[in-house]
Amino acid sequence: MAEHIAHTFDVQLKELATKVEELGQLAVKQVSDSIQALSTCDTALAERVIAKDDLADALQREIEQKAIIIIARRQPMAVDLREIIGSLHISNDLERVSDLAENVAKQTLQMNCADRLADLLDETCGLGQRARAQLERVLGSYRHRDVNEALEVRRGDSEIDALNTSLHTKLLARMAASPQHIAICTRLLFCGRNFERIGDHATNIAESVHYILMGFELAGDPPKNRLPGVG
Amino acid sequence: MAEHIAHTFDVQLKELATKVEELGQLAVKQVSDSIQALSTCDTALAERVIAKDDLADALQREIEQKAIIIIARRQPMAVDLREIIGSLHISNDLERVSDLAENVAKQTLQMNCADRLADLLDETCGLGQRARAQLERVLGSYRHRDVNEALEVRRGDSEIDALNTSLHTKLLARMAASPQHIAICTRLLFCGRNFERIGDHATNIAESVHYILMGFELAGDPPKNRLPGVG
Repeated sequence: MAEHIAHTFDVQLKELATKVEELGQLAVKQVSDSIQALSTCDTALAERVIAKDDLADALQREIEQKAIIIIARRQPMAVDLREIIGSLHISNDLERVSDLAENVAKQTLQMNCADRLADLLDETCGLGQRARAQLERVLGSYRHRDVNEALEVRRGDSEIDALNTSLHTKLLARMAASPQHIAICTRLLFCGRNFERIGDHATNIAESVHYILMGFELAGDPPKNRLPGVG
Repeated sequence: MAEHIAHTFDVQLKELATKVEELGQLAVKQVSDSIQALSTCDTALAERVIAKDDLADALQREIEQKAIIIIARRQPMAVDLREIIGSLHISNDLERVSDLAENVAKQTLQMNCADRLADLLDETCGLGQRARAQLERVLGSYRHRDVNEALEVRRGDSEIDALNTSLHTKLLARMAASPQHIAICTRLLFCGRNFERIGDHATNIAESVHYILMGFELAGDPPKNRLPGVG
């Protein structure tokens, strides 16, 4: 009987992790699609990103409900409790990632397709790709329970911050040189900020993976390589 | 004995609500101080806002731990469970409000105090004050269990969105007219966006209060009065 209960509990934990991975895949797809829509001025794709944010919200709520039911029925301890709390934290971060991708899509809808700046657009999308790669990598560390991979993701965040700082500087210079491009440049500023924040959420997820596997929180901020307050 | 257990449970729920109110007061103070620092270019105050964000994070974690202990020990049902889940959601929103106030403080540190634009600065701070008022009001609705007050806050969000849209338009016009003010105007754009997001979190809190008191989620988005994607 005890074995049966333990088995059911394992199944519940596995289902929870599967749901988190499902939300993770959705968040990665949202980020990829938001970059694609921005890059090609694909307004139909941008609309789909915006519509799909509701799915991410619903999945996050479902994960929360499952987690609360497990906590109430099982009174888990130690590593099992960390697994559940970690799932809650990771799903919160993933839902925020979907929000940020949605905002990139909204910025895309506000841009004039005839008036896009190829070099700065490429740089913004490159920043987005880096953030997406960080997100995919940290989800791999969650799937494979790989704390070293999670720590690598955390260390990699400073590069994204540096890319955003560089983009920010170039956008300001372009606005000064070509006032007719101020509107589009401010849209790209917000997109850059959203991608930089997606990188921050990948870092948060890395810290949750570390907490699940190691049982303690990482102290201090991850290494930073940017001026305070850019974006 | 059953009465004793029920009494202890009530005490635990009350303690949880008290912690949420404490975090709420901290979040309001963070927003007020971030506006004050921005308005007067008070870099020492901005530094304090940035430092105090760790307190908000710690309080949020404490609320989460208390909530999980109550769920595991008490297996609460119906209104009690809603109260606990609502506390978790509200504390997540309050922690994000503190993050956004911290970002306003970081923007302030990046501004050149000699080069500030009184009219646009006033308008940005006015937007901040409206967001702060929404936050205070929704915390009052939580304290007094007043669903009508919460619904009023939710309805009021469209005004904040409209103010941010108006600010956004004016900032773009100023950048075009005075390219030497591009840097400061982009800082104010980000501050406006942060305040608009604080208003969104007040709306989320209003929806959590509604959920706690009424037992179901509000359907659909709150009334909107803005162009998509501003900020």
